[in-house]
Amino acid sequence: MAVKHALNVTREQDFAAWYQAVIAEGDLAEESGVRGCMVIRPWGYGIWERIQKLLDAQIKATGHENCYFPIFIPLGYFAKEAEHVDGFAKEMAVVTHHRLVADGKGGLIPDPEAKLEEPLVVRPTSETVIGTAFARWVQSWRDLPVLINQWANVVRWEMRTRMFLRTSEFLWQEGHTAHASEAEAREETLKMLEVYRAFAEDCVAMPVVAGEKPEHERFPGAVATYSIEAMMQDGKALQAGTSHFLGTNFSAAQNIRFQNKEGELELAQTTSWGMSTRMIGGLIMTHGDDDGLRVPPRVAPHQIVIVPMLRDNDEDEAVLDYCKALVRDLNALSAFGEPVRALLDARAQKASNKRWAWVKKGAPLIVEVGPRDVAGGNVSVLRRDRLYDQGGKLASEIRPQGEFVGAAAAALEDIQSSLFAEAKARTDGNITRDVADFAGLKAFYDKAGKFAGWVEVQWSKPTGDALEDIVEKLKTLKLTMRNVPNDARPVDGPCFFTGAPAVERILIGRAY
Amino acid sequence: MAVKHALNVTREQDFAAWYQAVIAEGDLAEESGVRGCMVIRPWGYGIWERIQKLLDAQIKATGHENCYFPIFIPLGYFAKEAEHVDGFAKEMAVVTHHRLVADGKGGLIPDPEAKLEEPLVVRPTSETVIGTAFARWVQSWRDLPVLINQWANVVRWEMRTRMFLRTSEFLWQEGHTAHASEAEAREETLKMLEVYRAFAEDCVAMPVVAGEKPEHERFPGAVATYSIEAMMQDGKALQAGTSHFLGTNFSAAQNIRFQNKEGELELAQTTSWGMSTRMIGGLIMTHGDDDGLRVPPRVAPHQIVIVPMLRDNDEDEAVLDYCKALVRDLNALSAFGEPVRALLDARAQKASNKRWAWVKKGAPLIVEVGPRDVAGGNVSVLRRDRLYDQGGKLASEIRPQGEFVGAAAAALEDIQSSLFAEAKARTDGNITRDVADFAGLKAFYDKAGKFAGWVEVQWSKPTGDALEDIVEKLKTLKLTMRNVPNDARPVDGPCFFTGAPAVERILIGRAY
Repeated sequence: MAVKHALNVTREQDFAAWYQAVIAEGDLAEESGVRGCMVIRPWGYGIWERIQKLLDAQIKATGHENCYFPIFIPLGYFAKEAEHVDGFAKEMAVVTHHRLVADGKGGLIPDPEAKLEEPLVVRPTSETVIGTAFARWVQSWRDLPVLINQWANVVRWEMRTRMFLRTSEFLWQEGHTAHASEAEAREETLKMLEVYRAFAEDCVAMPVVAGEKPEHERFPGAVATYSIEAMMQDGKALQAGTSHFLGTNFSAAQNIRFQNKEGELELAQTTSWGMSTRMIGGLIMTHGDDDGLRVPPRVAPHQIVIVPMLRDNDEDEAVLDYCKALVRDLNALSAFGEPVRALLDARAQKASNKRWAWVKKGAPLIVEVGPRDVAGGNVSVLRRDRLYDQGGKLASEIRPQGEFVGAAAAALEDIQSSLFAEAKARTDGNITRDVADFAGLKAFYDKAGKFAGWVEVQWSKPTGDALEDIVEKLKTLKLTMRNVPNDARPVDGPCFFTGAPAVERILIGRAY
Repeated sequence: MAVKHALNVTREQDFAAWYQAVIAEGDLAEESGVRGCMVIRPWGYGIWERIQKLLDAQIKATGHENCYFPIFIPLGYFAKEAEHVDGFAKEMAVVTHHRLVADGKGGLIPDPEAKLEEPLVVRPTSETVIGTAFARWVQSWRDLPVLINQWANVVRWEMRTRMFLRTSEFLWQEGHTAHASEAEAREETLKMLEVYRAFAEDCVAMPVVAGEKPEHERFPGAVATYSIEAMMQDGKALQAGTSHFLGTNFSAAQNIRFQNKEGELELAQTTSWGMSTRMIGGLIMTHGDDDGLRVPPRVAPHQIVIVPMLRDNDEDEAVLDYCKALVRDLNALSAFGEPVRALLDARAQKASNKRWAWVKKGAPLIVEVGPRDVAGGNVSVLRRDRLYDQGGKLASEIRPQGEFVGAAAAALEDIQSSLFAEAKARTDGNITRDVADFAGLKAFYDKAGKFAGWVEVQWSKPTGDALEDIVEKLKTLKLTMRNVPNDARPVDGPCFFTGAPAVERILIGRAY
C-alpha cells in the first residue's frame, strides 16, 4: 500500500518544488516581498541559532574572538584589491544617499541634497574593511597572530535567488586572521576547514568532502581556497563552507605590515573562512524526506515535542499535568553534553494537526499523550527518522513513560547517528571512480539521469587556456569541478582530460 | 597622597574625553574609518554577547521567538505610515544601485545601468517590513498573539556620532508583537518594559527609572512610549531601552486584520520594543572610574583573570601549572546560576602591564601569581571595584589559594551588588524634588554645575502649543522631559509650569 505523504510533491517528482514545499510546510522561511531577501521564521531561525551556538563554541575553542565591523564599505576600500573587486563588482548594493525627501506627489525619493560624496557598498564580505583594522592593530610580530570572527549579515545582489541557498542578503560568520608566516597561515586555513568538516558531520549529520578548490574556483584574491562539499539527495554538490589562504594579496593592498624578530618590515599572511545560512539549505536537502524536514537532534531547536490530546473536557487537566511533568523530566536529561530540549505544544488545535506540523518541521521525537496514556502510565512515541513501519503505517510506539524518559537521550543520539549513516551511505554510494574519459563522462550522466552523483577523476592540473577548455567542456554537461579531496588515494594513471601524467584526483559534479 | 590613575584624564576634568579614554584604553571599540560606524573590539563585543545571552533568555522566557527579516525596506513600505516616516526620513541610508562599474579612471562608480526601480532603505527599525509579514500571518484570532524578536543591525544616519551612544550603524534587538485586544497589547508593552528594567538593574547593575515618555517624546507612530532612564555619572539621563504601544496605527497602514471570535474583521493591536549597543555606553558611564571600566560580573566576558608573573626562567612552568589548576577550579564553580568564567592570561608580556590592561578593561577580579605565591600556596587578589585602600595604595590581598577559590563566587556576587548599590545611591541622591518653579529650576542647574542630576516636578500635562512652549523653555537650559516614573508618589499640588492642578510627576534632566 502506498503511503500518503505529508507533502504534496515528492523528491522524485520535482526536487526543486519539493525543496520549496519543505521550507513552506515546515515554517522555515518565506519570501519577504523584498527582492531576493527572505524572512527566516522561528523554526528556521531556531536551527540557525543552534548552528551559531555550536559553531561559535568551536571557533572560540580554536582561539578566535568575536568582533563587529561596519556594514558599509567605502568604494575606495574596494578599489584597492583589483582581483577581489572583479569577483564581486557585479553584485553589490550601493548606498548613494543618506536622506529621503517628499517627491511632491505623496511619495518619497532620495534627497538630491543628501548625496554621499563617496558611495558606500553594503558588505558582500569584509576582507577590505577588516584588513584596514588589521593594518591599525598590527605593528610588530608580537601583535600576531590576530584571530577574529564576525557573525553578520552580508549582501550579494543575486539575479536568481533560492531560499537559504542563494539570497541577496544572508547571515554568516566570517573569520579573518593575520599571521607572521605563510606556514602558520596555511595551517590556520586547514584548521578551520577541519572545524567546518567536523561541525557539518558531527552537528548537522551532513557528510562532506573536504578539499582544495581548483584554481579557477578560488575566492577572488585568494592564493588557495578549500571547501567542504556535501552531496544533496538529488546528487548535486553544495559548497557548504570555505576557507581561504590569502597570502599577502590583501595585506599588500591594505598595508598590513609588521616588524619581524629581525627588525625588518614584512607583510602579514592572512586567511578568511565562512559558513552561512546556506547550511540550512544543505540540511534540508540532506535530511528532508517526502513528509518534510528531519532535523538532526544536535541542531533541532526542540528535540522532543510533547503533544497532549485535549478534548475540551475535565480529563484535559490531568493530561496537561502529566505532559508538564514529562517535559520537566526530559529537560533534566543531558544529550550530546547539553541539556535536552523538550517542548510542550499545548496550543488549542487538534492533536493530529499538531503531530503533522511537527512531522513536517522535523522534530526528532514526537510524543503524543491522551487520557488512556495517562491512565496506563504510557506515552506514544514517533521517531521522525523512522516514520512508517514496513507495512507503511505510522510507526508510533506505546511505551511506559519511565522507560521512554530513561531511553530518550540515547534515542536522540541514535537518531543523530542514523541520519548521518543514511546520508553517508548515499554520498559514498554515489561517487563513481571508474569513468575513463570525457565520452564516458557524458554517457555516465546521460544514463544516471537527474539524480546522478559525482565522478572522481585523476587529472594533470593544467592551467590557462587548457584549463579553460576543460571548464567549458564540462559546462556543456552542466558539470563543475568541486574540489581535490584531502583524503583522496594517490594517483595511478593518466589525466582524464589531457592524457598527461595525473597529479591529483578531483571531484566533478553538478552543483548548487 | 594623590593616586596616579591609569587614564590620563579624569571624569571631573573632562567627562566626554574620559568616556573616549575608557573605550580606547579598555579596547572596547574604535573608529572604523567608515563615517559614523565603529569597530566593536573583542572585549566590547564580549560584553555585548553577554547582554545578548542574558536578555535573549528573558525574551524567550516571556514567550517570544526569534526570527530574521530583511535589512532592506522598499521605499513604498515607508510611505504608508506618514508619522513614522516623518520621524525617520531625515536619517536613512538609501540603496539606489546594485552594481559597480569602472569609471575609466581606475576607480569605481555605481553602474548607471543598474539603477534600482524602487530605491531600498537600510532599516532604521523594522516595524514596516515586519508588519507586512504579520499581515500575511494573521487571519484569525487563533493566530494571535504573534510574539517575535529579532537581533539585528540597523542604520540611522547620524550627523554627530559618539561611540556606543549614537552611531550610524548599531546592533540591537527589536521585539514586535500583535494582539487581539488593546488591553493585551498594553500589558505586553509594560511587561517588556519590566523585562528591560530588571535586566538593566540585575544584570548590568544599572539603576533605572521606568516610566512613560511624554507625548512629544514618543516613537514616531506610537500611541504610548515607555522608557527606562539611567543616570550617568555626569548627571545626564540615558534612555537605555524603550517599549511602544502602537495601537492600530501600524496595523491600519499595513493591513494586519483578523477575524475575531464574533466573525468580524478587526485591526490587530501591535507593540514594539528595543534595546541596543547603547547599553554598553550606559555601562561605561555608570560604572567606569578614573582607572577605566568596571564591568559588572554578570556581563563580564571574563570574570576572573589570572596573570602569572613569568620571568623567563625555570620557575615559569610551576607558576603556569599552578595557574592552570586555579582556572580549572574556578571554572568549575557557579555564580549567578552560570559557570564562572575565569581566564589565564599567559601572553608574553610584563605582568604589571597585563594587570593594568585588565584594570582598564574592568575585569571584576584580577589575580596575580608569582613563584612566591606558588611556594606559599597563595594568590594575590585585586578587586576591581575597590582598587585602592584608604591610603591610596593598590589594594591587592594575599590569600590562601583554597580560601580564595572557596569565596570566589560570593566575591563576584558581592561585586555585582556593590556596583549596583553605588550607582543606586548616586542616582537616588541626585534626583531633586523641591524645585518650585522655572526660576528655581534655572537656579538649581546654575548652582549644581556640570554634573547636575534630575529634577522631578508635578505637571498638568498640557498639550499642543502650551506643551511646545514648555519644551522650548526647557531647551534654553538644555533640559528635556525624561519620563513619568511608574512608581512616582501621587501628585499633591499645582503644575510646575502652568499652576493648574497637577496630574502626574515627571523627571527633567539633561540627556544623551
